[in-house]
Amino acid sequence: MSDRRQPVLGILGGGQLARMLTLAAAPLGIKTLVVDTSAEACAGQVAPLIVADWSDHEALAEFASHVDAVTFDFENVPASTAEWLAGRVAVYPNPGALAVAQDRLTEKTLFRECGLATPEFVAVDTREDLDRALAVTGAPAILKTRRLGYDGKGQFRLRSGADADAAWEALGAQAAIHGLILEAFVPFERELSVIAVRGRDGEFRTWPLTRNWHTDGVLSLSLAPAPDIEALQPRATALARKLAERLDYVGVFALELFVKDGELLGNEMAPRVHNSGHWTIEGAHASQFENHVRAVLGLPLGDTGARGASLMFNWIGALPDPAPVLCTVDGHWHDYGKQARPGRKVGHATLCAPDAQALLGRAEALAQTIGWESAVASVREACGG
Amino acid sequence: MSDRRQPVLGILGGGQLARMLTLAAAPLGIKTLVVDTSAEACAGQVAPLIVADWSDHEALAEFASHVDAVTFDFENVPASTAEWLAGRVAVYPNPGALAVAQDRLTEKTLFRECGLATPEFVAVDTREDLDRALAVTGAPAILKTRRLGYDGKGQFRLRSGADADAAWEALGAQAAIHGLILEAFVPFERELSVIAVRGRDGEFRTWPLTRNWHTDGVLSLSLAPAPDIEALQPRATALARKLAERLDYVGVFALELFVKDGELLGNEMAPRVHNSGHWTIEGAHASQFENHVRAVLGLPLGDTGARGASLMFNWIGALPDPAPVLCTVDGHWHDYGKQARPGRKVGHATLCAPDAQALLGRAEALAQTIGWESAVASVREACGG
Repeated sequence: MSDRRQPVLGILGGGQLARMLTLAAAPLGIKTLVVDTSAEACAGQVAPLIVADWSDHEALAEFASHVDAVTFDFENVPASTAEWLAGRVAVYPNPGALAVAQDRLTEKTLFRECGLATPEFVAVDTREDLDRALAVTGAPAILKTRRLGYDGKGQFRLRSGADADAAWEALGAQAAIHGLILEAFVPFERELSVIAVRGRDGEFRTWPLTRNWHTDGVLSLSLAPAPDIEALQPRATALARKLAERLDYVGVFALELFVKDGELLGNEMAPRVHNSGHWTIEGAHASQFENHVRAVLGLPLGDTGARGASLMFNWIGALPDPAPVLCTVDGHWHDYGKQARPGRKVGHATLCAPDAQALLGRAEALAQTIGWESAVASVREACGG
Repeated sequence: MSDRRQPVLGILGGGQLARMLTLAAAPLGIKTLVVDTSAEACAGQVAPLIVADWSDHEALAEFASHVDAVTFDFENVPASTAEWLAGRVAVYPNPGALAVAQDRLTEKTLFRECGLATPEFVAVDTREDLDRALAVTGAPAILKTRRLGYDGKGQFRLRSGADADAAWEALGAQAAIHGLILEAFVPFERELSVIAVRGRDGEFRTWPLTRNWHTDGVLSLSLAPAPDIEALQPRATALARKLAERLDYVGVFALELFVKDGELLGNEMAPRVHNSGHWTIEGAHASQFENHVRAVLGLPLGDTGARGASLMFNWIGALPDPAPVLCTVDGHWHDYGKQARPGRKVGHATLCAPDAQALLGRAEALAQTIGWESAVASVREACGG
């Protein structure tokens, strides 16, 4: 029998997403090769790692010569790097889609073109623009960098027009580099995300809507399927499909949504596997990581249905003692192999159960041992008490 | 915050079991380091690999210096190698337990001491012993090497005493090297296995009994939980616990059983994670791979309950087209990253479903596309038609 050659997926960025993509690719017989600017990148523990700057064309050419397709762990890879690679190897999502999703202004403009309402937003290039923008959005509002922001970084909240000077002091220097955008602050009722995947052949699927809770701008809990989504799921799926088709998107992406007065508002799009989809590893028939690998390598997509109910706890800064999770029935531990650092995503845990009521019981017992009682109380409330 | 050091698990043998152990260890934040005699060992695709002979003490010392505990992908690592390492680092299962399980004679003797009946067996050292042994076992019977046999290798089936010369011609030369044993052939009704795990602290758990089908001496299908085991499960669990305690066993092992006239007979014990437990990756709350890693590193054991029903298909020799499995709801593909070779285990697939009836529906649809109709018909029959 002839030698077989296993496909190799190239991944730009070597964080926990690349790590979990690698762990999902291996059972499919697919190898990964990772590029990161740091030798400490945690995906390097499970995959070969090339350490290089995004502008190092020699290293990127070497990388491209070894892989069958390229994808992203990290959406802030320079668009120029993605473009350069796309001239040599298949890159998914395509660099144009990546560029749209990298920029809050083009992203929200696309949302509206696709029929997805958004909070009011205005581009801000100067201090005077900021005053004009505030007149449109009203207060409170949030000034953000158009590019390179994530997890609440590069943001300043204005409670009133009196905060405009402070906001400009904090972010004005970014205006010329990354651009700024002022967004109306919407007192939303809940935050949802839809994780979606589109194949090379246009096949499109979404996992059930996920309900998310943030703390200090960083995701802390995700519950899936989100409760009370019967009316919202078809609309969220249709919007995600429209966005994906407009961008000729291939792979997994997340669309973050607010719900206000029962209507969906678009917050942002992440052109990659997403923290709010980590529950799919144990909680869905096919995970976001497996389906992303399948999509970018042209394999059939797996079923995105949920296996019961799941709740994901995000570990920020440092890992707690794993024992309580390890001892919980259908509790799953995910240590990203990183050093502890304030604000850093270092791991997560997922609890699964056959249904939401059984899940709440397990989650509440776990919460008592790890001090998450009030967070889990919010989940109980979301499930109708 | 101080630097953390991630635990490292050393694995002797770099086949698919080491590969799947590595993939299960990573989310726990545990690294692996593998030793194999071949640079092509498939675990080397996901873990650092030391290529060395089992007698290469320099390489083994280097290996031991990097790991927190040592375990096995492969039970035929020389007992002397395990003993040598155990003088330097924690080795689980302990070399004494490994030595018992490596030898069909000591293994079956232990089974009887623990109250587990076995087919008649007699040690055979000479051609004359073989005739005497046949008088005890009757015919048909199977002559086997005491050590180093697996997947039907090192075996010769005697239909009657007239086959004794041919059997001796085939295996007699092994008598002085590995020893031989003659076992009565039992016309059993079904083959089951119990996968069990014991922690360093003596905590003991079993997954639900698995029903197995073999083709040409190699496992082809495993169904879990096995049907109609209400009466057998408590006895199988108690026997597995007794064996584990007698051996002061730490880690996962498999006990292969025959059922005849409703009674359990001991066939053999595999002192490692086992092919008939691969379904636990998607079909149980904690997989055999995860619990083996937890056990040998002293972490709490995970729940061994099943999530619905599972059926594992073993791919022998070469992989079929993956598309039918990838397109089946809750179908999971496992490509070990090996070159095709007749008789070689190159991968498996697991189908899961909420219950056995739903599983059969999925399995029969899949079987039609891959030509496994008659095999899956046996599964339907086992489930009561």
